Amino acid sequence: MEQNIVNSEKIVIEGRNAVLEAFRSGKPIDKVYILDGCQDGPIRTIVREAKKHDTILNFVTKERLDQLSETKKHQGVIAHGAAYEYSNIEDMLALAKEKGEDPFLILLDNIEDPHNLGAIIRTANLAGAHGVIIPKRRAAGLTATVAKTSAGALNYTPVAKVTNLVKTMEELKERGLWFVCADMGGETMYDLNLTGPIGMVIGNEGEGVGRLVKEKCDFTASIPMKGDIDSLNASVAAGVLAYEIVRQRMVRK
Amino acid sequence: MEQNIVNSEKIVIEGRNAVLEAFRSGKPIDKVYILDGCQDGPIRTIVREAKKHDTILNFVTKERLDQLSETKKHQGVIAHGAAYEYSNIEDMLALAKEKGEDPFLILLDNIEDPHNLGAIIRTANLAGAHGVIIPKRRAAGLTATVAKTSAGALNYTPVAKVTNLVKTMEELKERGLWFVCADMGGETMYDLNLTGPIGMVIGNEGEGVGRLVKEKCDFTASIPMKGDIDSLNASVAAGVLAYEIVRQRMVRK
Repeated sequence: MEQNIVNSEKIVIEGRNAVLEAFRSGKPIDKVYILDGCQDGPIRTIVREAKKHDTILNFVTKERLDQLSETKKHQGVIAHGAAYEYSNIEDMLALAKEKGEDPFLILLDNIEDPHNLGAIIRTANLAGAHGVIIPKRRAAGLTATVAKTSAGALNYTPVAKVTNLVKTMEELKERGLWFVCADMGGETMYDLNLTGPIGMVIGNEGEGVGRLVKEKCDFTASIPMKGDIDSLNASVAAGVLAYEIVRQRMVRK
Repeated sequence: MEQNIVNSEKIVIEGRNAVLEAFRSGKPIDKVYILDGCQDGPIRTIVREAKKHDTILNFVTKERLDQLSETKKHQGVIAHGAAYEYSNIEDMLALAKEKGEDPFLILLDNIEDPHNLGAIIRTANLAGAHGVIIPKRRAAGLTATVAKTSAGALNYTPVAKVTNLVKTMEELKERGLWFVCADMGGETMYDLNLTGPIGMVIGNEGEGVGRLVKEKCDFTASIPMKGDIDSLNASVAAGVLAYEIVRQRMVRK
């Protein structure tokens, strides 16, 4: 067999046909490792598929491929796929509509810690958000650690992976969503009107919300900081801001 | 030397005089390992000190002691101490008074995960709580992991370790504090008056708030749950409820 679960965190697919088939059947592939210098037809097709799906391509030595290989029959190509399926934004908007609620989406601008991602998916579920959107690159994906930390929420709350968060925000704005990011220097969250169709943006653990993403936000909400240190844990900040949205939705409806 | 930092998580103290001296100087000792069957004067004194400080006593074989020993000169006794100093409740109340604020304490009923403990200390600092109270037994102590996850908050926010959480609550009630615990089946937190001198109680990750502790609480606050799973991550729940207290203090003063 060319497909294995490794650490139950990701699926490893080895061999040309298996990898190509995975792409064609729409399996979520995160990364492809290809033998450097290999240029034949099937490999070129895999590279093209990978680019089409915006999958990360790594050209590596034979030693590295052998090391990554479980089957020792990789034929010059190994793919790593997510063990969990990603959803899409249309399904999230449909879910909101079905429930008769204003859309409430949570966008994560490069959350790197899988425990934070899992805790945020858990919070998203309980705060009644209709989905969580993460970027394809430089961010934690849906690993077994995320699934475990989400305490089962991953089975209910859709998670979508997008190529470009800024472009996704532009598209969602055309669908009537407003965006609020949690960051210092904004207006106190209690003073903002956070009702209506909303996208809540949480930044990276170390760097906060990226500049381009922040520019697309309609509001910056700040959580009051009464202490000596800089910032809350990312998943706690997400919880605090998500529940301020919940509160306002309960009070003002 | 008989004292070493192991993994920078805890201090290990070996030998009769060193352990006795540690107790007498008030060092925070979490556990004492004693050679089973050892009954001489100094060992009996150490057992007495350990009981006086409610330190956990473990009677173990020579093989186990040798295994735990760094110095190989344990003389039948090894103590594990916290790498960080605990504070006391009087200091917390004094801190509130000094700031001219109603006391706001966070009590943790057996939080076991050091990441949760660290994140809650971080939240406590930023939400303006005057201290965090943890029980001596069955709970995470102040390890290096907790210090790291607290993002520096451990240097500012006092943490006290108490023998009996229920007794501590009784004493604090006499000092004018009210207690609210986060649990299902309570009144929605937005509908409660959470101002005034308050102790906020967060339960264990799996079991929630213990029965005896819950009986001492004046209110049970429930965080609205709109999803499919049972509960928020403990540190997220602590953040959400702490910030509802912050909001009410800001709005109503």
